[in-house]
Amino acid sequence: MRAKVHIRLKAGVHDPQGRAIANALIGLGFDEVGEVRQGKLIELDVDADDAPTARARVEEMCRRLLANPVIETYAIDLEA
Amino acid sequence: MRAKVHIRLKAGVHDPQGRAIANALIGLGFDEVGEVRQGKLIELDVDADDAPTARARVEEMCRRLLANPVIETYAIDLEA
Repeated sequence: MRAKVHIRLKAGVHDPQGRAIANALIGLGFDEVGEVRQGKLIELDVDADDAPTARARVEEMCRRLLANPVIETYAIDLEA
Repeated sequence: MRAKVHIRLKAGVHDPQGRAIANALIGLGFDEVGEVRQGKLIELDVDADDAPTARARVEEMCRRLLANPVIETYAIDLEA
């Protein structure tokens, strides 16, 4: 099974990378750009019997390693 | 309008970050993990009259700044 994990900075957490991207885009003439936030996309192959098991395990991976709960949130999408 | 841009390494491009995450997960006992790939998730607020215009502009941003076409692919999702 393939899991996609989206990791985002929580609202209100300062995002200097996003800010730098926004400034660079505006410098290139993309004046229509407002706020930019940069997160991570982690794609994992997971060997599991069924989707609920895979989701529970990937949630545990997020809590223990992939995301920093102080400043980040995560969302999991599963593909068969 | 809000655009989500997923930036992934092309298949075959070596991904040491993904490899490090896989090794760390296996070290924590997540033996069911296979390949791990790490990409980027960039979320942008874009001021545009309609979705086709927004998509065309974000595609141009990807080509000019956000993605490295030699080693990366990108996918754009638009939200109203």
